[in-house]
Amino acid sequence: MIIDKLFNTVKEKGHVCLGLDTDLSYIPKDFLNKFSSISEGVFQFNKSIIDATLDVVACYKPQIAYYEALGLEGLIAYKKTIEYIKKKGGIAIGDIKRGDIAKTAEMYAKAHFEGDFEVDFITLNPYMGLDTIEPYIPYIKKGEKGIFVLIRTSNKGAKDIQYIDTLDNEKVYSKVGDKLNKIGENFLGQCGYSSIGGVIGCTHTEEGIMLRKKLNSTFFLIPGYGAQGGTAEDVAMYLKDGNGGVVNSSRGILLAYKKYEDGEKYFDKYAREEVIRMRDEIKLAIKNNTRG
Amino acid sequence: MIIDKLFNTVKEKGHVCLGLDTDLSYIPKDFLNKFSSISEGVFQFNKSIIDATLDVVACYKPQIAYYEALGLEGLIAYKKTIEYIKKKGGIAIGDIKRGDIAKTAEMYAKAHFEGDFEVDFITLNPYMGLDTIEPYIPYIKKGEKGIFVLIRTSNKGAKDIQYIDTLDNEKVYSKVGDKLNKIGENFLGQCGYSSIGGVIGCTHTEEGIMLRKKLNSTFFLIPGYGAQGGTAEDVAMYLKDGNGGVVNSSRGILLAYKKYEDGEKYFDKYAREEVIRMRDEIKLAIKNNTRG
Repeated sequence: MIIDKLFNTVKEKGHVCLGLDTDLSYIPKDFLNKFSSISEGVFQFNKSIIDATLDVVACYKPQIAYYEALGLEGLIAYKKTIEYIKKKGGIAIGDIKRGDIAKTAEMYAKAHFEGDFEVDFITLNPYMGLDTIEPYIPYIKKGEKGIFVLIRTSNKGAKDIQYIDTLDNEKVYSKVGDKLNKIGENFLGQCGYSSIGGVIGCTHTEEGIMLRKKLNSTFFLIPGYGAQGGTAEDVAMYLKDGNGGVVNSSRGILLAYKKYEDGEKYFDKYAREEVIRMRDEIKLAIKNNTRG
Repeated sequence: MIIDKLFNTVKEKGHVCLGLDTDLSYIPKDFLNKFSSISEGVFQFNKSIIDATLDVVACYKPQIAYYEALGLEGLIAYKKTIEYIKKKGGIAIGDIKRGDIAKTAEMYAKAHFEGDFEVDFITLNPYMGLDTIEPYIPYIKKGEKGIFVLIRTSNKGAKDIQYIDTLDNEKVYSKVGDKLNKIGENFLGQCGYSSIGGVIGCTHTEEGIMLRKKLNSTFFLIPGYGAQGGTAEDVAMYLKDGNGGVVNSSRGILLAYKKYEDGEKYFDKYAREEVIRMRDEIKLAIKNNTRG
């Protein structure tokens, strides 16, 4: 099961999920100008970041919106980036948040689990219902692919749907989480987690501990660290025994170089340093948490 | 406002939204073999369909999943298709159902309202919250672009989230619809509808009449007709005064040729005949409805 590979990589390399939200403006000018096309410039930036961090991250998460914004050129860069991650033995989560049903969802599965845009995991949006995940199940069953379904995000607007109180006094997101956790029980890896993971945004409350306990077979993809306000202590509440999830950071890592005078020249080195800092900070917070 | 253009086109040409869910298997072999690449074959099929229907449809809705499934080749076909619709003065709804926040949503806006993948309208998924639509507002304000947000779909799984009963005895989708309708009131066109439309799947109940009344400034994009089980009488309940929405059909039109012996040769002609049949059927149902 692909979830076992991710679990073991977390155990070995820590919890950092490196978000490759590569905006053109993030790439140092001198570096970008070395390449004759935008797709090559974006890809080479990503490649430098990947080369500098492969032994210290759990996985990479390219956010496809940044590539779509550059049109076909951007999608060439997306394709080359995920191919490179695969070639180096890394794990790629395509952050695509698609959500559709029936034949359309089959098409998305074909698009992102086969062919040009093949990745190990994708993110999905469940609003249309849990039949949105059915077309991905055959790939999950084979053990090769996995999904992370949006359960609870940490943006302001999350209250509009996810936090609605239901007639039986729950929250909408809680019902979604329970249902996904239950489906996931049919696809458990040896690590005890299933290849149907959940996106759980990091808020600053003890709720994390409750969710980690309740959704016991759901591996978490946790956004919200760093630039978005979550601390290592916050995210540690969503993790268990030093595993159970990966923590995403994008800008915090890609733009770490901005703090240094020679940053533009060594952006990859500073990305690596930031990953290690973040990795160790989370490790320590989990340790303190377990003690407490 | 772009919604006025759509409204007026519906008035003039009827309610048919032609879904360009162009699966490779839908294209007659002899036709496809005439072209040296998949992207050209798919585009030329779409072009033939568009040429044969431009005066009898309200708009076109390419479902991007079908193009993503063909990788970069498919996205070239998608780009050429929407460019061709624009060139011919038609209206294109990119059925992308993206849903993300902050900078990521800005990137999707850039991707689908500018550059390679520019269309007039896109579909969006609101699960993360109504801040998912904020980055599209500047485009809507300028009058050039519009969105259709998922409110209520008609698939089996819709019960999982959209139909959850809330503490104050509503349905989740109903709250979503009300909120969107309210936001839309700030962006009304001269036609009385706003450029923030809603996707409302056609079910077989009187609920349509209630929704059309309640969401009075929301223009509807209605899937579920034909192959998905909705009749003209069903969809007519979601329309008002012969306007207020467009009704999507994809396979029913693209594959209309399959019923005829010489179908493969004249697939475009049979698509046109099916559009006209559907258009007139809906027109009649609305007339009967208004009488009743």
